[in-house]
Order: sequence, then structure tokens, then C-alpha cells
Amino acid sequence: MKRKIAVLPGDGIGQEIMDGALEVLKAVGDWFGHEFEVEKGFIGGSAVDRFGTPVPPETIKLCKESDAVLLGAVGGPKWEHLPKEIRPEKGLLAIRKEFDLFANLRPVKAFESLLGASPLKREIVEEVDLVIVRELTGGLYFGQPSGRQGKRDEVAVDTLVYEKSEIERIVHKAFKLAQKRKKKLTSVDKANVLETSRMWREVVNEVSGEYPDVEVEHMLVDVAAMKLMYQPKQFDVLVTENMFGDILSDEASMITGSLGMLPSASLRGDSFGLYEPVHGSAPDIAGKGKANPLAMILSVAMMLRHSFGLKEEAEMIEMGVQEVLNAGYRTGDLWTMGRGTVVGTGAMSQLVVERLEAD
Amino acid sequence: MKRKIAVLPGDGIGQEIMDGALEVLKAVGDWFGHEFEVEKGFIGGSAVDRFGTPVPPETIKLCKESDAVLLGAVGGPKWEHLPKEIRPEKGLLAIRKEFDLFANLRPVKAFESLLGASPLKREIVEEVDLVIVRELTGGLYFGQPSGRQGKRDEVAVDTLVYEKSEIERIVHKAFKLAQKRKKKLTSVDKANVLETSRMWREVVNEVSGEYPDVEVEHMLVDVAAMKLMYQPKQFDVLVTENMFGDILSDEASMITGSLGMLPSASLRGDSFGLYEPVHGSAPDIAGKGKANPLAMILSVAMMLRHSFGLKEEAEMIEMGVQEVLNAGYRTGDLWTMGRGTVVGTGAMSQLVVERLEAD
Ligand SMILES: CC(C)[C@H](C(=O)O)[C@@H](O)C(=O)O
Ligand SMILES: CC(C)[C@H](C(=O)O)[C@@H](O)C(=O)O
Repeated sequence: MKRKIAVLPGDGIGQEIMDGALEVLKAVGDWFGHEFEVEKGFIGGSAVDRFGTPVPPETIKLCKESDAVLLGAVGGPKWEHLPKEIRPEKGLLAIRKEFDLFANLRPVKAFESLLGASPLKREIVEEVDLVIVRELTGGLYFGQPSGRQGKRDEVAVDTLVYEKSEIERIVHKAFKLAQKRKKKLTSVDKANVLETSRMWREVVNEVSGEYPDVEVEHMLVDVAAMKLMYQPKQFDVLVTENMFGDILSDEASMITGSLGMLPSASLRGDSFGLYEPVHGSAPDIAGKGKANPLAMILSVAMMLRHSFGLKEEAEMIEMGVQEVLNAGYRTGDLWTMGRGTVVGTGAMSQLVVERLEAD
Repeated sequence: MKRKIAVLPGDGIGQEIMDGALEVLKAVGDWFGHEFEVEKGFIGGSAVDRFGTPVPPETIKLCKESDAVLLGAVGGPKWEHLPKEIRPEKGLLAIRKEFDLFANLRPVKAFESLLGASPLKREIVEEVDLVIVRELTGGLYFGQPSGRQGKRDEVAVDTLVYEKSEIERIVHKAFKLAQKRKKKLTSVDKANVLETSRMWREVVNEVSGEYPDVEVEHMLVDVAAMKLMYQPKQFDVLVTENMFGDILSDEASMITGSLGMLPSASLRGDSFGLYEPVHGSAPDIAGKGKANPLAMILSVAMMLRHSFGLKEEAEMIEMGVQEVLNAGYRTGDLWTMGRGTVVGTGAMSQLVVERLEAD
């Protein structure tokens, strides 16, 4: 198989973790005889520094010519005081919208050897295996009007808007995913208050007729925020709108106590997708070779699975990561309770590569 | 002191827990020689059944003639299929708005004897002592337009709107509260995406000049959702807008593992306030005498403190609750790990009353 991949390391630790992930990608490609052509582009603060905008046209062009995108992370204190139109985050929002990447998949899975790092008790977190499906191109993040009003700009407004079709397509994605998993879908809304949520709930009920094998449950967002903490095991696939998805997926990322382990995929109708770790650019440790590359490496696995249909290759990476953890290797963020061997970004990536080759 | 209190038990377990709380109120009043006149009114589903509306004018009138309001809980499956205008929750929203109760205080404090009930590890949860200050009468819950648009009603819209003055008054409340506590204020927003959040952040920065002794920190809502799970101790006072406050306060209610313990106060500029437990109407256990009355009892303590300035009386109740827990008494929701003595709603309330009299 031959594929072209746009590689956008971004800011902060983005570069370091991307280097590690690309080594893993190359190793898998070599092993299976695939040709993965990678081409680098700029996004976020580093794009602002070079081109004056967080997503230059060159980057859009590169992504258009590619079969998938790997993204590191964007943002940092250096760019925080820029006008909002050219803030690094705007780059992320713009690329999601430009490529209509409406379905954000964020799996949260407990790694047996990392259970000790969770703030939750072992019995709460073991066997957690859920996926948050977040709508990514609608809602409050993009609705108009969004701005100031009133004589002295003393009123601020944002708009939460959804078209029925936008809800339908994400809900279908979530049902299909649930069919491949434990066949349980939890749809999260605030239907006791919001009109958008009432439409959301109606659509879920309508669409559910097409997936009779999937059990559906509606849950209010405040209740979901509680249950993610005290009964995370009860979830299989959780589908929700953009802003709720942002909050709940970050909350859920703490369940396993290892934000540095969580990959994500942003998809649309075809095989194209953007893959990035859930964590941010961690400016405080950037450039020190201490960052955990595993979320980026697991994002590569998600790309192989979702964009290229390479299930075996994806599993090889996931197994490799598991084995390295089982062997006791930890980056600083994972090293709790004085056990294990602490390694840096490069060494951790190398360890994964070695496991692949040993298979 | 002589005061009139409107008592709105509401639905589900509301009646049972209110009975217990009123006994405690009476005992404290007798002890200190205060005259608390209580008058009952209807709200929520039980008001719909009787008057066809979740907040009848009689209830508004009663509250207007009172110095404070005690509310049990509203809602239940019986009323879930009513049109949205007369759903029980609407009663809650309407009364908040009618009385301009813009400041919702939700304290979360770890009870030493209940630490075992938390889903979080002991070292994460012990010594947690935070208050969420939630804006309660603005934002997405009340903004217009909120409804359907398009030729076939295929678009749903809600509006997130804040006036500067609405933000100022809640932020002042939060700063004043922080001054009386550990002098640390965390303001939560989504300023990297929302215009309302950018205004929120500006106002916090402006107002902070008047409270030089309070340390201020801005945090994105997604980051706050994480930190509440893995570093809840880092918070003292957390202030945020309505919807974020709804989600984060319910998440935070799980920290101590005892939702049944958490009271809340909804305040405005003067001494008037509405006090209610954070938990809901729990229709599944309603009428069985099993509900935990302690959140309602602690809401009475909040009323004594915030509306009537009766600090000593409030502390007497809080101490009483603590002692009953230390003595090993538990309602079903708290009874984990097979230790302690399980008691029902009435017995639990009675135990608190006995401690007061023993003081
Ligand atoms: C950076 C920010 C705009 C973004 C979001 O809120 O979507 C991030 O928090 C995320 O979850 O990917
Ligand atoms: C019942 C509902 C409208 C209400 C809210 O969201 O405000 C409740 O969840 C709460 O937090 O008091």
C-alpha cells in the first residue's frame, strides 16, 4: 500500500512526539511493505511565526493532497496575546472546519499496568473501555452571531446552532461504532433546558430505528459528568455535541490517569482523517526530551485503522505500546509510586520500535 | 430573631427530606430562642398536578412574603412527557429568574468519615474544601432566540448571552467569598473559543483590582473538568457561568462520593436566598424512608448563615451532622464497605436533632 501523510508537528512538544511517532510509522511500513510518504507542514503558533497565520494555504494544500493528517499539538504562552483570529487554536478549528471533520473519536481505555496512576480507585477504573464521539464542526464553536453588541460593547453573544443533518451524520457514526463494540450508545444532552438538545434527542430516537441491535440511553450532561467519575465502566460509546464533548472527553481523559496515553481521530464520511493526541503542547516541558510520545504513537495506530483499513498494523503498534508498559518503562508523566524505569521521549519511541521488530 | 421561611418540598424524596430538615430547624430555633415561621407551598410536578403549572402564583407570593426559601427537589418520570413550558424543571428555572437569584454557591467538602465512599483515592480527596460559584440566571439557559428555525424546523438554536453587569455581580460575589476563605479564585471559561468567555475573563481581570489580597487564576473549562478529578485540592473558590457551572458542580459533587451530603444556596444582593440540596428528586426511592436528609439539613445550615447571619446556629448543625457520621450512622447511599449502622431518613434526622440537644 502507498499513502501520503501530511505531518503537522505544531508547537511545544509537538515536534518531539512527532519524531518518535514517525519512527514507529516507518518501522511498521517497512515490516509490512507499505510505502508511507510523509511531508511536513506548519500549523499553530509556529505557522503564525513563519506565515502570519495559524493555517497557511500551503498547509491546506498539503492536507488536500494527502490521505491523512498527523497533528502534534498547538498553542503556548508565546501566542496567547495575539488577536483571536490568528491564535494557534484558530488553526485547529479552521482545519477541522475546512476538511469537514465532524466526528471526533476519543477512546479511553485502561492500561492494566498504569492503573496505579489513576486518581480513581482501582475497582472503578479497571476494565474501562469507552469511546467519546464528539461532534466537531458545529454548535457554539462555530455559530453566528458570536461577538459584542450594545452601545458600549457591553453584551457578549455566542450561538449554539445545529442543523438536523449535522446531528444525523454524527449520530449514525456513533451507532455504527457501537455496533462494532459492546452495542451500547449513551447520547448526552441537556434536553431539559436546551432546544438544540431536544432536537438532538429526537434525532437519536429517530435514527435508533435503523440500529435495533444497539441499546440506546439518553443522559443529561451534568449526570454524565458525574457518572464518568463514579461509574466509567458503564459506558461503551458516548455521543454528544461539540462543547459537551470537549468538557466530557477531557474529564474522561483523567480516568486512566494518563492523559499522555490518549489518541484521537477526527473523521468525515470517507477515509480521510486527522489524528492527534488529546493532550496539548505542554510548553513547560517542550524541548527537554521528556514528553510522552505514546498518545501520538497510538494516534498513528488509529490512522492506520480508520483511514487505511490496516487493522493488523494498528494492532501491532498497540501491542507494542502495551508490552513496553508491561516491561515497566515510563515517561515522567506516568512514573508514579517509584516503580518502573523512567525514559525520555526518544527512548520510549525506540522501545516501541524494538517491540515491533521483535514480533 | 423572627423569620418567615417558604418551604417547597417539591417531588420525589423532597417531602421526606424536608420533614427531617424542618425538625432540625425547629430544634435549633428552640435552643437559641428564634422563631422560625414555616409555610408550605407547591413547586415542580406536584404543583403541575394541583395547579397545572410548575410555579403557581401562590408559590411566588409565598416566597415574596418570606425571608428565605427551602426547596426539596423537583421532577420525576411522571412529568417527563409534558410540554417543555410546564415541565417541573421549568419551575426551578422560573423561580431562580423571578427572584434574580444569580449566585449559586455549591460547597464541596470532604467528610473525614466518608472518605471511603469516594471513587477517588484517599490522598486525592482528603482535605478537599472548595466552593463552586455558578452564575444562575444568564447564559444559555435564558438567552433568546431559543427555538426552531428553517422551513421544516430543521435548525435548532440556543443563545449564550451575557451582559457585562451580570458577570460583574457574580464575580464580585466570588471574590468576596474567596476573601473569607483561602483567598484563591479560579475563574473558569472557554476564552480560546467563546466571545462570552473573553468578556468574562476581561471582567475578572478588571474586578480583581479591587481584591488585591485574592490570588486569581484563569482556567479553561476542559482543563477544569480534568483538574477536578485529579487535583481537587488545588481549588478554593471556582467561579463560572451557568452551563459550565452546572456540569462542573455535578462532577465536583462526586469527589466526596456522597452527593447526598451536598447543600446549595442561591443568592442575590440582599439577604434573601433559596436553599436546596444538589441532588435530585430520586423517584426510585421516594416514599420509602430511605433518602439521605443530610444535604437538606446542611442547606438549612447555609440558610441560617447566609440569609439570617446566624453563624453559631449554622455551625451547630454542621457539627451535629459530623458527629452523627463519626458515630457510624449512614443512610443507604453512604453505606459502603459494610461498616456503620444503616438508618432511614427519619432516624438520621432524629440523630442530628439529638446531637444538637446534647451540646
Ligand atoms: C484548543 C481548543 C480549541 C480545542 C477544543 O476545545 O476543541 C481543544 O480543547 C480540543 O479539545 O481539541
Ligand atoms: C434541573 C436543571 C434545570 C438544573 C440545572 O441545570 O440548572 C439542575 O441540573 C441543577 O443543577 O440545579
